[in-house]
Amino acid sequence: MRVSLAGFLAFVLCLGWLSAHPPKGGTSVDNAMDTQLPLKTFRGMQAEAKGCIECHAKKNPGIVADWKMSQHAHAGVSCIDCHGVTKDSPMLTMDGHEGSKVPISVLVSTNTCAKCHEKEVTEFRHSGHVRGAVQIWAKANMRDLMVMVEGRNHPDLKHAPAATGCQQCHGSIIQLNKNHRPTPETWPTYGIGTAFPDGSVGNCASCHSAHKFSLEEARKPAACASCHLGPDHPDIEIYNNSMHGHIFNAEGAKWNFNAAPGTWKVPDFRAPTCATCHMSGNAKSAVTHNVSRRLKWNLFMPLSKLRTGGYETASDDYKYENKITIGNPLAGNPKGPEAARAEMEAGCVDCHNKQHIDNFFIMADKNIMLYNEYWKEAVKMKDELAKKHLLGKDMWADDFQNTMYHMWHHEGRRMRQGGIMGAPDYSHWHGVFEVQQDIRKLRKIYAKRLKTNKIED
Amino acid sequence: MRVSLAGFLAFVLCLGWLSAHPPKGGTSVDNAMDTQLPLKTFRGMQAEAKGCIECHAKKNPGIVADWKMSQHAHAGVSCIDCHGVTKDSPMLTMDGHEGSKVPISVLVSTNTCAKCHEKEVTEFRHSGHVRGAVQIWAKANMRDLMVMVEGRNHPDLKHAPAATGCQQCHGSIIQLNKNHRPTPETWPTYGIGTAFPDGSVGNCASCHSAHKFSLEEARKPAACASCHLGPDHPDIEIYNNSMHGHIFNAEGAKWNFNAAPGTWKVPDFRAPTCATCHMSGNAKSAVTHNVSRRLKWNLFMPLSKLRTGGYETASDDYKYENKITIGNPLAGNPKGPEAARAEMEAGCVDCHNKQHIDNFFIMADKNIMLYNEYWKEAVKMKDELAKKHLLGKDMWADDFQNTMYHMWHHEGRRMRQGGIMGAPDYSHWHGVFEVQQDIRKLRKIYAKRLKTNKIED
Amino acid sequence: MRVSLAGFLAFVLCLGWLSAHPPKGGTSVDNAMDTQLPLKTFRGMQAEAKGCIECHAKKNPGIVADWKMSQHAHAGVSCIDCHGVTKDSPMLTMDGHEGSKVPISVLVSTNTCAKCHEKEVTEFRHSGHVRGAVQIWAKANMRDLMVMVEGRNHPDLKHAPAATGCQQCHGSIIQLNKNHRPTPETWPTYGIGTAFPDGSVGNCASCHSAHKFSLEEARKPAACASCHLGPDHPDIEIYNNSMHGHIFNAEGAKWNFNAAPGTWKVPDFRAPTCATCHMSGNAKSAVTHNVSRRLKWNLFMPLSKLRTGGYETASDDYKYENKITIGNPLAGNPKGPEAARAEMEAGCVDCHNKQHIDNFFIMADKNIMLYNEYWKEAVKMKDELAKKHLLGKDMWADDFQNTMYHMWHHEGRRMRQGGIMGAPDYSHWHGVFEVQQDIRKLRKIYAKRLKTNKIED
Repeated sequence: MRVSLAGFLAFVLCLGWLSAHPPKGGTSVDNAMDTQLPLKTFRGMQAEAKGCIECHAKKNPGIVADWKMSQHAHAGVSCIDCHGVTKDSPMLTMDGHEGSKVPISVLVSTNTCAKCHEKEVTEFRHSGHVRGAVQIWAKANMRDLMVMVEGRNHPDLKHAPAATGCQQCHGSIIQLNKNHRPTPETWPTYGIGTAFPDGSVGNCASCHSAHKFSLEEARKPAACASCHLGPDHPDIEIYNNSMHGHIFNAEGAKWNFNAAPGTWKVPDFRAPTCATCHMSGNAKSAVTHNVSRRLKWNLFMPLSKLRTGGYETASDDYKYENKITIGNPLAGNPKGPEAARAEMEAGCVDCHNKQHIDNFFIMADKNIMLYNEYWKEAVKMKDELAKKHLLGKDMWADDFQNTMYHMWHHEGRRMRQGGIMGAPDYSHWHGVFEVQQDIRKLRKIYAKRLKTNKIED
Repeated sequence: MRVSLAGFLAFVLCLGWLSAHPPKGGTSVDNAMDTQLPLKTFRGMQAEAKGCIECHAKKNPGIVADWKMSQHAHAGVSCIDCHGVTKDSPMLTMDGHEGSKVPISVLVSTNTCAKCHEKEVTEFRHSGHVRGAVQIWAKANMRDLMVMVEGRNHPDLKHAPAATGCQQCHGSIIQLNKNHRPTPETWPTYGIGTAFPDGSVGNCASCHSAHKFSLEEARKPAACASCHLGPDHPDIEIYNNSMHGHIFNAEGAKWNFNAAPGTWKVPDFRAPTCATCHMSGNAKSAVTHNVSRRLKWNLFMPLSKLRTGGYETASDDYKYENKITIGNPLAGNPKGPEAARAEMEAGCVDCHNKQHIDNFFIMADKNIMLYNEYWKEAVKMKDELAKKHLLGKDMWADDFQNTMYHMWHHEGRRMRQGGIMGAPDYSHWHGVFEVQQDIRKLRKIYAKRLKTNKIED
Repeated sequence: MRVSLAGFLAFVLCLGWLSAHPPKGGTSVDNAMDTQLPLKTFRGMQAEAKGCIECHAKKNPGIVADWKMSQHAHAGVSCIDCHGVTKDSPMLTMDGHEGSKVPISVLVSTNTCAKCHEKEVTEFRHSGHVRGAVQIWAKANMRDLMVMVEGRNHPDLKHAPAATGCQQCHGSIIQLNKNHRPTPETWPTYGIGTAFPDGSVGNCASCHSAHKFSLEEARKPAACASCHLGPDHPDIEIYNNSMHGHIFNAEGAKWNFNAAPGTWKVPDFRAPTCATCHMSGNAKSAVTHNVSRRLKWNLFMPLSKLRTGGYETASDDYKYENKITIGNPLAGNPKGPEAARAEMEAGCVDCHNKQHIDNFFIMADKNIMLYNEYWKEAVKMKDELAKKHLLGKDMWADDFQNTMYHMWHHEGRRMRQGGIMGAPDYSHWHGVFEVQQDIRKLRKIYAKRLKTNKIED
């Protein structure tokens, strides 16, 4: 183990403290942007950057090769522009190294990206993506699952599940040790909701991977697929199951993914990718990095609800209020759920007539509401069992609660997301077909507990 | 909700009627072809089509862009050729619109495709693909599963599982409302067995997606993958697991998928795709759209049986007899199962010697027969339980029947299909490894019920 | 069935004999290499090869087309060079045919490949890959699972699960019948650990598929994916879930996979494939076909152990000692586990800084050790149940043993392999999330058995 005991204890203490005290987003959160270096206005390469490039081309050739292919390199944006920080920045990880005197950070936050891409970062800040990390630490049951349940509350190993699992998609709340180095428990992560020491939240490199930061990459389904997969939200599987995915998988290799921002549209492609529907411009909506904006429903919650909450708040809560919150799960379109749907449908029109679109959404919406019927029945049974003290304390060892969790978190999401994204196999076999069996299992356990007045062993 | 209550009630009544009265395939089924417009013989663009194109290029640019890339456009086949109908056609959905006086249908059936592609449509009509939709509605237990069980018999929502699930692959029996518009419960669907108001069955666009109708697309595994996937017939997963898929996935992007019909053969590709084995021409079999023709076994049924039934009948039953039937589950090669196998093997020879092919099929066939041994044991137990009234009424809440269903419909198909298509992981881990555990579970439940003379709660 | 009864009985007898007597690796194992024809030194095409090519170009055009695209063809290596054998070779399958008098073998073993690629074959022989087939037949419980449990000990069908499943990835111990033809129970197979009649073990064509034997193919994830998938080691799923796979899937189609051996490196690619990390050259390790060499841990065993065993021995045991052994499960780097890790990390440096790499492996290692905690608890419970005769005889029908098997063989591998290869969904949802539920199930069964002093039915 390369982490010292002292270092680890410091981390554990820090984590304990975290539960009680939401971490501050840097030393001077209110003017966090002030810790960013101003953007240079000339196009040439900085002398210091040449030093970085020459040395790292030998040590880490992939980084430099990537950058050379990037729009950044072509625009004269180089190492220091993103990694350079002020000496007193909460982001500082090295105050010069290998002969260079430039203070730098190995971390690059959205504050940095916003120096040039302010519109994109603002939109992104309004999206559910930024809730990724902070919402986890805002919920006691999530912390318990990761650390106590899965990590067995083991003194040395308990943070491994979060570090190798949750945080790699959700992001982490990055902590620096006393030497200003990010701790292994919180970094590296490619998680999209990563909270940085400067108080900013979010990670552009989740989709536009470093150090190429490619537009083309983020337009392809693979960019979303490394997180949007698996039993609880099999979005890439859903896409592949859909007619859209069918067409992309058959022909997408020949499409034009490299159109300039805001100009990517039919016939650059024959079928939409994730980015097309959720982000690309159409008749009713400009290009947006707020992926929640065109969503009518919240489909990850146990009960499907209309997204009536406007913008996401988790990033601002963290950055400006120093609070770790679950944000705004009903974030969506500031004009409400029907406006969200209208902005989504404006994309469908490129290839489908109105009757087609209307019919499709009528049934997909009904499918979502149908799921709610299952959920409400389960809740009713659970409430009655709770009242009669017939629920186990450890929900993961209690068949009723465990089945109910899966009915929501796994099967129920697949039913809803499969239907709304045109994936019959996920809507049916991985969705409602399993949900209907879950409810039967719940009814059986419920009846047995009521009958015997005890929890089965 | 955009569907009126009256409209919905009309639909529900219609569905209720459907159960008792198989829907007629149009007003004048016997001469359904007569409702098709004759194919024009000149190559130029029709004046009306120019109107369509100009307007839809603005409203739905993807449709027009697709068509422009199609062989249809190059051959002068345009909008009206496929969408134009007679005023009294059962397919009519709009009697002129936006200034045009041409009566059209938003639906395009195989009757239309057959105007030019008669051979392909006839072959397709002989294949199991056309059973897709009608077989579902022909079986009471399937209707129950979709509407009563999964749909909770909910007055408003009960058709959502079928509409978002089953019908998107199997196809629907399209119903038009009083305004001649297809109902949301039955359209849109890309399902391959869709039954149209003109009595024709099948959907060419399932594999050759609109409006490009590409040959290349249908030759790629992705075309089959949007339906042939998942727990009950993971055919794309099986392909990816096979050496054939391994080679395609490593190199296929460079192969020639665009050879003219009937000319696509080695070395256009280095390994077969789904279409190569099941459809492409070889020494013993011409190109065919009858995908059942080279199948020796029926591997979707609970007990594997040799395909001795000749051609599929479901399409003709619907079109000419006005009957919704399960068709001919033993449809295959009109010359019988060994002829089917011989036609399949004639493709293998391109890359494999006879010893290799013979050995492979000896063991794959044994694997299929081995599955039958498991199934027959289960049936014997079930029959005895039934005789002693030890089977639950709701099969989905009865552990014995539910496990038996999965042993057949999921695990048992994977064992058989995995073996016959060279996918060891599916034959073993997703197949026989699970089947052997299913049979153990069945034996336990069986023994317990016999011993206690009751169904466990 | 094309196999005669006599032939089958001979095979069954042979299999029975196999259990008791490890098969010899050919008639003269000690000088197995002597049965190989010497490599020709001129570059022209042999006259006999021209005969092969002309005839097989008609009969099996795919084989000849493949070969024409191969480096072999360009280097003048043709049919006889690989398929020609001496008359008394244990590999002989046909002593001339169709007018040719050249004795040939339809089988090509690593002995043949080693005539030109000795370094690669030697490295491969040192890797865990060669344990594939022999380890299965070395373990009584594996034979039982395949033949008795899954094959139902059926007189005619019992070998189908091994032939369609296990052996297609693991490889088989190829047996020839009295006519020198490989038996259907043991061939064809693409299994990487196939043991040949000449005593050599391993199959180069598993990754470099015949008859192109492409370098490019083996560098792509698809080459590994046809075996490294599924519930027990979802390595391709893990790769696709990782940031590495995300990048490959988005851009890999444009990378250069065709660099000459030993020259393939950044910026030929932007992200590593399986081959990059496990086989390609880097600052601390030359290119190697010993895929075990850079592995610190054995992660397929029930308890994770450090790889301290040096080279794999199964191939040499078979070839030189005539023994079927489980080989050396702790084979890895001859300098030990830390050297293995250092050789692996030397690849990471291309794109990641040391802090990143160190932090990543600290937590991935902890995740592996955390799994061990779960396993040790399970073993303790199992030992106590065994002592009290509370374990069922048929482990597959015993809930405790069956769950424990899955906790190790499926869920536990996914937790460990998912973490160490950067795949959060597999580490978490398919891994530790399921492992923690397994342990709860085990605890329940354990408590119930202790309490009731009987095995539940």
